[in-house]
Amino acid sequence: MVGFLQRTSRLRKAFRHLSAHSTFSSAATAGRSPVGLRGSFLPAAASRQLGVCCRTLHSGADGSRPSPAAAPDRLPFSRVTGEDLAFFRKTLPGRAITDPDLLESCNVDWLKSVRGSSEVLLRPQTTEEVSQILKYCNGRNLAVNPQGGNTGLVGGSVPVYDEVILSTALMNNILTFDSISGILTCQAGCVLENLSTYLEDRDHIMPLDLGAKGSCHIGGNVATNAGGLRLLRYGSLHGTVLGLEVVLADGRVLDCLATLRKDNTGYDLKQLFIGSEGTLGVITAVSILCPRKPKSVNVVFLGCETFEQLLKTFQLSRGMLGEILSAYEFLDSECMRLLNTHLKLPNPISDCSFYVVIETSGSDATHDGEKLHNFLEEAMTSSLVTDGTVATEDSKIKALWSMRERVTEALTHDGFTYKYDISLPVERIYQLVTDMREHLGDRAKSVVGYGHVGDGNLHLNITSPVKDPALLAAIEPFVYEWTASCHGSISAEHGLGLKKRNYIYYSKPSQAVALMGNIKAMLDPKGILNPYKTLPDNLR
Amino acid sequence: MVGFLQRTSRLRKAFRHLSAHSTFSSAATAGRSPVGLRGSFLPAAASRQLGVCCRTLHSGADGSRPSPAAAPDRLPFSRVTGEDLAFFRKTLPGRAITDPDLLESCNVDWLKSVRGSSEVLLRPQTTEEVSQILKYCNGRNLAVNPQGGNTGLVGGSVPVYDEVILSTALMNNILTFDSISGILTCQAGCVLENLSTYLEDRDHIMPLDLGAKGSCHIGGNVATNAGGLRLLRYGSLHGTVLGLEVVLADGRVLDCLATLRKDNTGYDLKQLFIGSEGTLGVITAVSILCPRKPKSVNVVFLGCETFEQLLKTFQLSRGMLGEILSAYEFLDSECMRLLNTHLKLPNPISDCSFYVVIETSGSDATHDGEKLHNFLEEAMTSSLVTDGTVATEDSKIKALWSMRERVTEALTHDGFTYKYDISLPVERIYQLVTDMREHLGDRAKSVVGYGHVGDGNLHLNITSPVKDPALLAAIEPFVYEWTASCHGSISAEHGLGLKKRNYIYYSKPSQAVALMGNIKAMLDPKGILNPYKTLPDNLR
Repeated sequence: MVGFLQRTSRLRKAFRHLSAHSTFSSAATAGRSPVGLRGSFLPAAASRQLGVCCRTLHSGADGSRPSPAAAPDRLPFSRVTGEDLAFFRKTLPGRAITDPDLLESCNVDWLKSVRGSSEVLLRPQTTEEVSQILKYCNGRNLAVNPQGGNTGLVGGSVPVYDEVILSTALMNNILTFDSISGILTCQAGCVLENLSTYLEDRDHIMPLDLGAKGSCHIGGNVATNAGGLRLLRYGSLHGTVLGLEVVLADGRVLDCLATLRKDNTGYDLKQLFIGSEGTLGVITAVSILCPRKPKSVNVVFLGCETFEQLLKTFQLSRGMLGEILSAYEFLDSECMRLLNTHLKLPNPISDCSFYVVIETSGSDATHDGEKLHNFLEEAMTSSLVTDGTVATEDSKIKALWSMRERVTEALTHDGFTYKYDISLPVERIYQLVTDMREHLGDRAKSVVGYGHVGDGNLHLNITSPVKDPALLAAIEPFVYEWTASCHGSISAEHGLGLKKRNYIYYSKPSQAVALMGNIKAMLDPKGILNPYKTLPDNLR
Repeated sequence: MVGFLQRTSRLRKAFRHLSAHSTFSSAATAGRSPVGLRGSFLPAAASRQLGVCCRTLHSGADGSRPSPAAAPDRLPFSRVTGEDLAFFRKTLPGRAITDPDLLESCNVDWLKSVRGSSEVLLRPQTTEEVSQILKYCNGRNLAVNPQGGNTGLVGGSVPVYDEVILSTALMNNILTFDSISGILTCQAGCVLENLSTYLEDRDHIMPLDLGAKGSCHIGGNVATNAGGLRLLRYGSLHGTVLGLEVVLADGRVLDCLATLRKDNTGYDLKQLFIGSEGTLGVITAVSILCPRKPKSVNVVFLGCETFEQLLKTFQLSRGMLGEILSAYEFLDSECMRLLNTHLKLPNPISDCSFYVVIETSGSDATHDGEKLHNFLEEAMTSSLVTDGTVATEDSKIKALWSMRERVTEALTHDGFTYKYDISLPVERIYQLVTDMREHLGDRAKSVVGYGHVGDGNLHLNITSPVKDPALLAAIEPFVYEWTASCHGSISAEHGLGLKKRNYIYYSKPSQAVALMGNIKAMLDPKGILNPYKTLPDNLR
């Protein structure tokens, strides 16, 4: 049998001599109306609410009203006193930080787009300490900002005003790992990459992976319901998280830290906290189901001339790669230009309109190689892809992945970035980029699209030399209305945080938002946990 | 290359000449203490509650106090009047049933263990009709029993007294199917098998499969958080259900029927209803992510001499079958005896202590065959399995699966059956059967164990010639205390319903149960939805 690498090398040469075809019909999107029937379920009240919201939240480009993304007025929480500090210092000896230099990085988010003014950072080590802090703060009516690795993109992980910062950084112990079931339990402050390293030594992997893995905490991942690069294969955290330990606003410890794949004894309470962005409780420990480490991993970087070809290639990969398909990501040629310009990353293949990163992972290298070969041959024969390269070695795999993972970084060098994280029916995801580009004309510096094709998740980013309220007014509500018209989600995986909280009605009916408010009131009646986040201002 | 079937035929002959080995050390269970650290998280109050509960719920064999599984007194709901019937008949012309013959089958559960006395069965066709009924019943303080296929095993699907039965049987329309994303939306009353048939014609499958598929409704599956035979591969409904439409107790329609893989706009409310057994709302529509139909399916039926060998074979299969492993089920020799005796199903292999059903499903028959061959060769060489047979054809696959799926049916012929559905750390699951057998001695007719090894889910069943309170008193609380001592779940996939509601404290701390009560009070303040179910009596 001809070796896989030899064959793929030949394939690559073949790719390079292929010309681009862009004559695909739009058959992939024909014959379905996914939103039609669902529309009939929308209660009239919700539709009205959406309309009202569009009218009241957006006042156009005149700048006469504050943006719905801006911070609301400070709520009447108490301010930290000397007596409070004394309590914190007694409870957490040496771990109640007030040094402004040390507080600086915890007050500002990774994008440097939100800056709080907290004067105290608490670093508990145990659940009991978290419980004591929250019980005290609740009694004193002190607002609390729970913070993991502070890698969030919607201003959810930093204080807005002077909230006490409660960091999970010192809660970083792995508690148990069962190699038979693959179930890991750990404290909430474990860094994702550290968990991955720990597991790889034990023949397992984490079921999630994302660009921020070197800094983000597993507790923060769960609180955000992080998606990332492996969701296509291993599903969402709602399925893989088996248990949580959570401290409620009043200090009560809720022990749902089961290590069982199945447990139908009553309501699945832990689910409430997955994706609640620290507004319902502070996650202190996590139990999670970890897949076996794949014995074979391949990464392919392909070029397509049209988005229709990219989608057809996705369908082909689902059929031919089947159970070994573990990621199907894309970036457009504008992303490639930014990678070239700002990070000096060369294009590993010839110039195309769209680029795809496909990862396979499986238990048999020969079988995986054969499946990949057959897929690539078919994709090439059908002229779906115009160029491509394959990696099986770690270093080359990392290099190809970096073309996808470093787009965010390249954007930060391009200017002020307006970021949108949109869920759409997969065949619609690039139309939003095209329409936005046309809508903005030369008002934007760059309009780029990349993201998780397999999950129907587009990252739409628009840059400008400087912060530009007029540009923002042209982007919003356009982007949200466009998304709502397709029954998409205005936050696929980043959450709502501070910045997107008031746009929730574009994706959720008023009945659902009202119920969220009831749940918040039930679990945190004083509203001390991560105030100004997730829930819209009109709920208070 | 030697053909797969030829090779497996040779393998089978080889199996038949192998002698049993039972000299395995217990290394598989060494070196871990999954419960130790978690124990330290249990709030003292919860431990006390567990103790209290054990003392108060069980009074021994004297029969002087009612069983905690028995129905509590009827709550002071209104009784259905002629005026109520007139409203129901006007709202649902021809679909408000009062004929006692037609009501009979809806008043009794599948096991014939719980019998209600409802005098009216409502068969709505639309969400709007469900909304009108619940609004009316809530206003009138009439209790409602939501009912799907009535295949539940814990008395959750039938009325306890005279609750109005609200059946989803006529809500059986498929709404949309998107073959690109694999997302199906349908009404709650669609029968699981009908959905499977619909999807198979479209190159997809349902992510769940269970013995009751010919009768159970998808809405009921979601309300029970059904597990079944494919959970090992495709995960739980908390991950695969993407959206729900639910009518709340007061008739409000909660539209969370998203058809997106990712949506992080606020709390994931639909999760609350998955596994809530109709006590928080009536599920009227479901959106669910469906996997591609596998191109190749193989089923193997193996025999092992010890449970340790069965577990080592499981570990081997995880490593060597990897991504194509789709089920790893077991039954013991007592199950085989019942299948032989009551259903005349012959053992397809030679007599062993334990039998395993392994299913693989994948996208390439040759690759799958090779993986299976290599796995079987290794399992045989290591003397982990003593006999086995392989099926690739549909009829033989069905025949082998029936050895596992028809155990429940065989048990009904063996006498009165006490059923337990237990989640445990996988290496402990059979110890409970052994201990129970020893504990009961000759008081039981049969003590059998079968279930989902891959999920750590044991179905423990104990039969007796007739209903036997003394035997029950010997089984309970022994079985629950045993399970709680391993931090297991006393209901892995069946739910709590009427029968298990008061045992919840064995698996959940009091803080969690109290919070469940708060959620119930928030969503259904009058408690009209499926009363006497899921929540323990002491919460009211």
